[in-house]
Amino acid sequence: MIIDRLIEGIISKKSPIVVGLDPNIEYIPDIYKCPYADMNDGLEAIGNVIFDFNKDVIDCIYNYVPAVKPQIAYYELYGMSGLQAFYKTVKYAKEKGLVVIEDGKRNDISETATAYAKGHLGTVTDLNGLKIKPFDVDFLTVNPYLGSDGLTPFVEICKEHDKGIFVLVKTSNKSSGEFQDKICNGRPLYEFVADYVNQQADSYVGKYGYSPVGAVVGATYPQISQSLRSLMPKSFFLVPGFGAQGGNPQDVMECFNSDGLGAIINSSRGIIYSYSDKYDVSVSRDEYINSVRVSVLDMKETILDELKKKYKNELMY
Amino acid sequence: MIIDRLIEGIISKKSPIVVGLDPNIEYIPDIYKCPYADMNDGLEAIGNVIFDFNKDVIDCIYNYVPAVKPQIAYYELYGMSGLQAFYKTVKYAKEKGLVVIEDGKRNDISETATAYAKGHLGTVTDLNGLKIKPFDVDFLTVNPYLGSDGLTPFVEICKEHDKGIFVLVKTSNKSSGEFQDKICNGRPLYEFVADYVNQQADSYVGKYGYSPVGAVVGATYPQISQSLRSLMPKSFFLVPGFGAQGGNPQDVMECFNSDGLGAIINSSRGIIYSYSDKYDVSVSRDEYINSVRVSVLDMKETILDELKKKYKNELMY
Repeated sequence: MIIDRLIEGIISKKSPIVVGLDPNIEYIPDIYKCPYADMNDGLEAIGNVIFDFNKDVIDCIYNYVPAVKPQIAYYELYGMSGLQAFYKTVKYAKEKGLVVIEDGKRNDISETATAYAKGHLGTVTDLNGLKIKPFDVDFLTVNPYLGSDGLTPFVEICKEHDKGIFVLVKTSNKSSGEFQDKICNGRPLYEFVADYVNQQADSYVGKYGYSPVGAVVGATYPQISQSLRSLMPKSFFLVPGFGAQGGNPQDVMECFNSDGLGAIINSSRGIIYSYSDKYDVSVSRDEYINSVRVSVLDMKETILDELKKKYKNELMY
Repeated sequence: MIIDRLIEGIISKKSPIVVGLDPNIEYIPDIYKCPYADMNDGLEAIGNVIFDFNKDVIDCIYNYVPAVKPQIAYYELYGMSGLQAFYKTVKYAKEKGLVVIEDGKRNDISETATAYAKGHLGTVTDLNGLKIKPFDVDFLTVNPYLGSDGLTPFVEICKEHDKGIFVLVKTSNKSSGEFQDKICNGRPLYEFVADYVNQQADSYVGKYGYSPVGAVVGATYPQISQSLRSLMPKSFFLVPGFGAQGGNPQDVMECFNSDGLGAIINSSRGIIYSYSDKYDVSVSRDEYINSVRVSVLDMKETILDELKKKYKNELMY
């Protein structure tokens, strides 16, 4: 099961960490842009830059982390050429043995939800009856606002194709409480979403007891993480908000179980744009690659130290 | 302003109707598939089929409706080739003078939300400093679960590029109430979303008094539509759920103001797959095109009759 592959990656690399691949051309070092500066089709050039950039990041990190999280917004930003870079990035990351979590926050109902699920996680049949995998990512993030009509079709495709989802439960941003924290019958709204996730996860688990029906739970509200951890014991948490958004190592501990599993912590800008506080894009390729390596190893060590401090002998790695 | 262009299309065509372009290859008549049956790349063939199919639909309807709503899930379903068909469809529909409402239900926060907004509604700058419009749709649907951090960046890009959004407030599906109807401090959650939309719409209106910051309000809950109409007086409603999902002509009247404006009713399957109850894909091209024409004219007449019955002399068209 895909969740077992993710867990085995975490254990073998001692690294419950996922690196966000959010390629914003303004922050990408000039060295990646030079080869394409003379291309006429501006977006095609940017697509090439992004793929070269991602390739260097992936080559640098694949021994240290089990997964990458391309944020598809930054690829749609560059139109068809950006999406081509997304497609190639997913393929390349999988070739390197990484689990690919697409951050797409997709959502719709019934047959339309199934269309998203099949396109990103499943297969389609071509005119000659052959099955083709359009994007073939391993996990997709999904938004719950439409209710179970908008979630169950994703779960069904996951079961059919051995894939996973992370449902947005409580996000890391400042305004996440505006709707998510509204109190209904004495409980915040996000707990009702958690109930749905838990119900789906409970009956669908892999060999380590975790389900590929997971939840997005931000690093920035540790007390909420703690209550959600107990409401969704079998779900893996994808945890954004560490670092740049203010979540610290102690905060994210609440997302883990005592075996050191149950959560994977994301960092995007904190790793791929760690080369300079002020985005000095004149950095050399060696300096850039080194900054990625240093920051990912630093994050790995920070999280692992904290886990060891908190869970000592119970830790599985 | 883009909302004025939409309104002028509604008035001149006497048609507050948008046709959903949801190309599912299983339901597309065989006649569109034949020319590409021998192509080796299955998804590229499907992309070509979809564009030819959409082109016939657009040619048939552009005199009768002001707008089309491509549902991007059905293009992502076919990977890069599907998205290429989406890109070409948007371009073709705009050439025919149609307003394009992309049903993408996008959502994310801060810079990432801005990336979605720029990619779909705005511009990006290429390596040579030229501004390029990656997708350039007119309106995009947006999911509010992340709060104002996830909505305001879209509104800002709309203002900069004269575009619009429809925020999911109350959707048409059966399970929409699971989270959207939860009662918080005596009010359903969707009303808090409506408050945000109204606040943004109130200070940003076109010459007819309507704002390009609109709302998705399903046809299937007329009492709710009525209360939302008064909570968001300046917002246009994009109304799904008519026909196939059970919303009838009387139900959708609640989404309009007495001038016959304020709402645009969507039909997808009811028009593009009206050729046969049982999806008999052996239909001829002439029969297919005729079925689209008949069903769109029928819907137009049905809605217009109902508007005339209800609002008589106040109607603007």
